[in-house]
Amino acid sequence: MEIDKYFDSVTWAEIKALANTQETPFVVVHLETIKKKYQELHQCFPFAKIYYAVKANPAVEIIRLLSDLGCYFDIASIYELDRVLGEGVTPERVSFGNTIKKAKDVRAFYEKGVRLFATDSEQDLENIAREAPGSKIYVRVITEGGETSDWPLSRKFGCHTDKAMDLLILARDLGLQPYGVSFHVGSQQHDIGVWDGALSKVHSIFTRMKLEGISLKMINIGGGFPARYISEVNDIPTYSEDILRFIKDDFDDELPEIILEPGRSLVGESGVIVTEVVLTSRKAKNDLNRWVFTDIGKFSGMIETLGEAIKYPLYTEKKGETEEVIIAGPTCDSMDILYEEYKYELPLDLAAGDRLYWFATGAYTTSYSSVEFNGFPALKAYYL
Amino acid sequence: MEIDKYFDSVTWAEIKALANTQETPFVVVHLETIKKKYQELHQCFPFAKIYYAVKANPAVEIIRLLSDLGCYFDIASIYELDRVLGEGVTPERVSFGNTIKKAKDVRAFYEKGVRLFATDSEQDLENIAREAPGSKIYVRVITEGGETSDWPLSRKFGCHTDKAMDLLILARDLGLQPYGVSFHVGSQQHDIGVWDGALSKVHSIFTRMKLEGISLKMINIGGGFPARYISEVNDIPTYSEDILRFIKDDFDDELPEIILEPGRSLVGESGVIVTEVVLTSRKAKNDLNRWVFTDIGKFSGMIETLGEAIKYPLYTEKKGETEEVIIAGPTCDSMDILYEEYKYELPLDLAAGDRLYWFATGAYTTSYSSVEFNGFPALKAYYL
Repeated sequence: MEIDKYFDSVTWAEIKALANTQETPFVVVHLETIKKKYQELHQCFPFAKIYYAVKANPAVEIIRLLSDLGCYFDIASIYELDRVLGEGVTPERVSFGNTIKKAKDVRAFYEKGVRLFATDSEQDLENIAREAPGSKIYVRVITEGGETSDWPLSRKFGCHTDKAMDLLILARDLGLQPYGVSFHVGSQQHDIGVWDGALSKVHSIFTRMKLEGISLKMINIGGGFPARYISEVNDIPTYSEDILRFIKDDFDDELPEIILEPGRSLVGESGVIVTEVVLTSRKAKNDLNRWVFTDIGKFSGMIETLGEAIKYPLYTEKKGETEEVIIAGPTCDSMDILYEEYKYELPLDLAAGDRLYWFATGAYTTSYSSVEFNGFPALKAYYL
Repeated sequence: MEIDKYFDSVTWAEIKALANTQETPFVVVHLETIKKKYQELHQCFPFAKIYYAVKANPAVEIIRLLSDLGCYFDIASIYELDRVLGEGVTPERVSFGNTIKKAKDVRAFYEKGVRLFATDSEQDLENIAREAPGSKIYVRVITEGGETSDWPLSRKFGCHTDKAMDLLILARDLGLQPYGVSFHVGSQQHDIGVWDGALSKVHSIFTRMKLEGISLKMINIGGGFPARYISEVNDIPTYSEDILRFIKDDFDDELPEIILEPGRSLVGESGVIVTEVVLTSRKAKNDLNRWVFTDIGKFSGMIETLGEAIKYPLYTEKKGETEEVIIAGPTCDSMDILYEEYKYELPLDLAAGDRLYWFATGAYTTSYSSVEFNGFPALKAYYL
């Protein structure tokens, strides 16, 4: 892998310098990378409001940085809300984007000043009407895209079009403000075309709602923009150009407010997980498979290797001849194998104590980490 | 499900009384259940040393209880070791059972007095010879059993017979004490017969090592004894009767020391996770699938629902007509669906705020829990 796809040589030297003073495993997060990603996204979607999906990496360092840049925040729980407000973010810059929420949490969000809520069910909508009266509502619809995203997100969330329209009407009847429609095409979405289908669906909802006297104002086009892992992906300008054309095709007469909810694409590439080889071994004398055991595992920060869904770029300073290996974590759990189907190539002379650098690990690593599986502590993080 | 399979009515009333004072989600662990399970296992294998697999639930309350009962401890990491020693366990009662370990951790175990180590590779063995000279070694062999256990454990750990013998000879040549052989048939193993095959393999190693002048003393027959989840399992006396017969068949002339490493079977049934329904919904007007969202998820204590591997008995106080549902957790992650293929039946009038009790959740729940995925804290635990 090429380091300069991620960091210039000065930055990489800084990351290495910090890394050299610490015991593995840990992640180094480079905040300037996040700033650049935010600015690029902002330039590509100049009229859109960017709501950072805090769940991707809830570190206060990242919240502070994005808050200073004028970012908005997509929040999944009362715990995330308290952290974001604690960093001085005002509640007008918060959306409660989780459609699964307790009534008492809806009340708590309302009392703290939040007025923008996602929903996809009657029960939730009735809770919002009672606990957060008069708030703005956007309904999440189910979309295609599960086959072409690396981490699909639609099946559990959202509802079908007919139900979405019922919910928007019900929202009005309950004294709420039916404000818009959201969708999520799946995290790490490779096929830009799926936004087209989703936007057409949204447009038909806008049109049919007008007949009901409801004038929707906003489309939340979710996240799904990719981080660069092992496979090639299009860059953000390519995504934005296509998506903006799709929006204009459907809404040329009256462009609605656009909300984005990036997580992975903002913070993924900022992180480098630094680990150490614990052991290498073969299971039998003439075993063709070499196992490389590293001191990070599925349950200490690399949960997105489940099903080998996300394949992180891997770097080692050892050069020379390589062979295909199986890579596994340090716990007594056979589930804790990182890559077995996909074969990474690692140097034959890779040995215990050598460091392995996992690039693009800034998203969905620290917060997923288990508290103490097999006694191992949660993933440490350093911010540069 | 029948509560009295797990707790008598007095105990259940105590658990409920505690549960009623707390906000969900949390787990209540009934220590007396663990004591009974330990005593039963001890009676069934009166001559065996029982090493509790601390990873199953590393709570100090459990470590103290088992320590007082005379239990030994199977340890996966330096962090687990420090906790166990901190509770007054002496190092002679500890086995470092993880075959994946850093040289510096081997040294730390040795300096703290541990003299019993598992291994399955040359590199690890050389580390032990250097950092823990003269220690007792047992070699872990790969066994069958992956198809009939609910959580297979063999593929990542252990080595084949030829290699195991090489390692035992190498151990002797490096000044270590080649002490025994271990295997693990997989967690929640349904087929008792797999112990027979594994023991025959161990017997052939014992025999062939004698020809090399090495007299092995111990068999570590691992864990794998089941907890009672949804499907019927044999009881521990049935397991012990068969396994003891297998041992006698092979080793009648000279019975070796036997070590057991139970985790799940000791602590699994002691726990009840108490959760609350957050929401129920359908995705379309005439959707046949009702979704029940609960306030615990895959990433906050229920990771063993991955692939729906473990199906916990589920209890609700609502009675009346039921229907099949999909059960999912509270986070913004579509992976966080607990059961979708296996359909639990839940009452039609189940509503937000109703409590769901997940039985047999004492093992592999708290410690697997993520630190703050979607902001949700790690699973709380109360010990009764």
